[in-house]
Amino acid sequence: MSKKVAVLVAGSWGTALASVLADNEHEVMLWSRNAQQVAQMNEDHRNEKYLPGVDLSPRIHATTSMEDAVRGACAILIVAPSSAMREVTRELKLYRDPASLVIHATKGFETESLKRMSIVIAEELDCDASQIVALSGPSHAEEVVRRCPTTVVVASADLAAAEEAQDLFINSFFRVYTNPDVLGVELSGALKNIIALGAGLSDGLGYGDNAKAALLTRGLAEIARLGLEMGANPMTFAGLAGVGDLVVTCTSQHSRNWRAGSMIGKGQTVETVLQEMGMVVEGIRTTKAAYALAREYNVVMPITDQLYQVLFENKAGKQAVEALMGRVRTHEIEEIAQTQKEDWLRN
Amino acid sequence: MSKKVAVLVAGSWGTALASVLADNEHEVMLWSRNAQQVAQMNEDHRNEKYLPGVDLSPRIHATTSMEDAVRGACAILIVAPSSAMREVTRELKLYRDPASLVIHATKGFETESLKRMSIVIAEELDCDASQIVALSGPSHAEEVVRRCPTTVVVASADLAAAEEAQDLFINSFFRVYTNPDVLGVELSGALKNIIALGAGLSDGLGYGDNAKAALLTRGLAEIARLGLEMGANPMTFAGLAGVGDLVVTCTSQHSRNWRAGSMIGKGQTVETVLQEMGMVVEGIRTTKAAYALAREYNVVMPITDQLYQVLFENKAGKQAVEALMGRVRTHEIEEIAQTQKEDWLRN
Repeated sequence: MSKKVAVLVAGSWGTALASVLADNEHEVMLWSRNAQQVAQMNEDHRNEKYLPGVDLSPRIHATTSMEDAVRGACAILIVAPSSAMREVTRELKLYRDPASLVIHATKGFETESLKRMSIVIAEELDCDASQIVALSGPSHAEEVVRRCPTTVVVASADLAAAEEAQDLFINSFFRVYTNPDVLGVELSGALKNIIALGAGLSDGLGYGDNAKAALLTRGLAEIARLGLEMGANPMTFAGLAGVGDLVVTCTSQHSRNWRAGSMIGKGQTVETVLQEMGMVVEGIRTTKAAYALAREYNVVMPITDQLYQVLFENKAGKQAVEALMGRVRTHEIEEIAQTQKEDWLRN
Repeated sequence: MSKKVAVLVAGSWGTALASVLADNEHEVMLWSRNAQQVAQMNEDHRNEKYLPGVDLSPRIHATTSMEDAVRGACAILIVAPSSAMREVTRELKLYRDPASLVIHATKGFETESLKRMSIVIAEELDCDASQIVALSGPSHAEEVVRRCPTTVVVASADLAAAEEAQDLFINSFFRVYTNPDVLGVELSGALKNIIALGAGLSDGLGYGDNAKAALLTRGLAEIARLGLEMGANPMTFAGLAGVGDLVVTCTSQHSRNWRAGSMIGKGQTVETVLQEMGMVVEGIRTTKAAYALAREYNVVMPITDQLYQVLFENKAGKQAVEALMGRVRTHEIEEIAQTQKEDWLRN
């Protein structure tokens, strides 16, 4: 059944998800503040700035009016940058039908407060965070608009909300799984940027595939440890929003975080890298956040610690890797080793 | 403390691990049936056939005599091909001190019997399988001999044995973790070849990074489901021998399994691929094994099923992927969803 869905905003990921909705015969209103971009999308059915060369469905209508976008929409998909999430959601509240479904597909924490996106949205919409659905997973926008097979997760504490989101998006090339663990899905999406940065650092230092695979695996383990302490389900980190997204991010040289890490690995200073890339590198900010969370929740995060020292305390990348390799010998799965060591010793 | 260690046989991985042992100042006896290879290694300190251009430590002595290799060795590392494991171990029994530590670093099942390597070894040595240590993880031999940072896992039900193996190998570039779950480590090492084959198939069909990441993640999930039913710890599959090794295998174009899958994806028949590659592709045999195990343990393994149909029932690769994408909508983590669905419904 065709439904009206509003998508805020018209970046590459927002536009790609709008395309999936249009393929599913929904009426899509794509909102952007940029009047020129909106005009182009309505005239040429293209979003040249973010998805050059891609023809969009005529079912996608662009608008600069939040009111027009949202009025009568049964579902609202928010894909604003994490830094703009509070502002966009505040404006959304003016026009939104409180019964409409709210889905977000934004990765990262709010700057300073370090709040997760579903929390920011719930605060601004004055609703229960459990009703918000988070969409995440291994998904280059460029592949999604070309209808390459893609899988994502929709997470919500509210099963009906998660299944409503699943119904909106699922089709033969875009496969949608539900997961009740919003916390785990949002943490994975934000924290994987640390590992991508570390993978870039390792590649920049010329350390090879073994080191990168180790960093990815052990990085995932420490993220899962933190998530577990914060109340997430550790299995989420082994899923699409966890290891799936991590693999895509760490093996793609298009990732900003990987690129920043690689430049630092090759000897450039953090300041130079930030200047040259001309934008905020999410992973640098997230490393700071994870470093603080590790202390707050008393979780051992050796990779995060070493990256923090490289990024904020001028430690050489080579020394950081050596420190990681030189750690005392340990068990692979600390939590398990702790309980099983007794069984071992009994034998 | 320097110890005598025997390494059987002198392939690329055996030679690379012999190098690590020599770096740790152990006296290494590297056994091979090939007299010419043995002579070259002792004269030039090179193994040109398997690790061209690499200088080996003079601490590594090669021999064609199993007796000389094994006599007085406090530890024996077996890195024979899975197809030769039983024969090599049978010969080993003639000379081995029963008190010596046995470690193996071979991935795969025994043909026909489908037994794991530690079981085959224990049967032939007439000892308890719990004493055998399995070494596994993301580790290209070429990088290990160049002392690139590498991490592996040593698994044994016997903690003392695992820690003895850890002590032999650990150094500043080769980091060794212990894990009590031999079953999980051995299953991961064998079953990851299925996923590598599937990743190659997906790449051969031109499906992109999103599809490959999905295949890797969902493939890991179904392998872990099987492992869990067989008695392994599901966390092992999220560790170095699981996701770590999987990432290295699926993103390296040097993997035989990936290459075989890719050729099939591009339209070649399984027969042609096997002829052209001129050797047994482990992943094809393993797919058959996993297909049988899935039925024996009553585990849902959709990726294995589809690959089986492509490999043995002439199904087109494209149709297999479409079948996977077209499955009914499900929850990401079935086991969790099952218990948590009730909580959801209560809200």
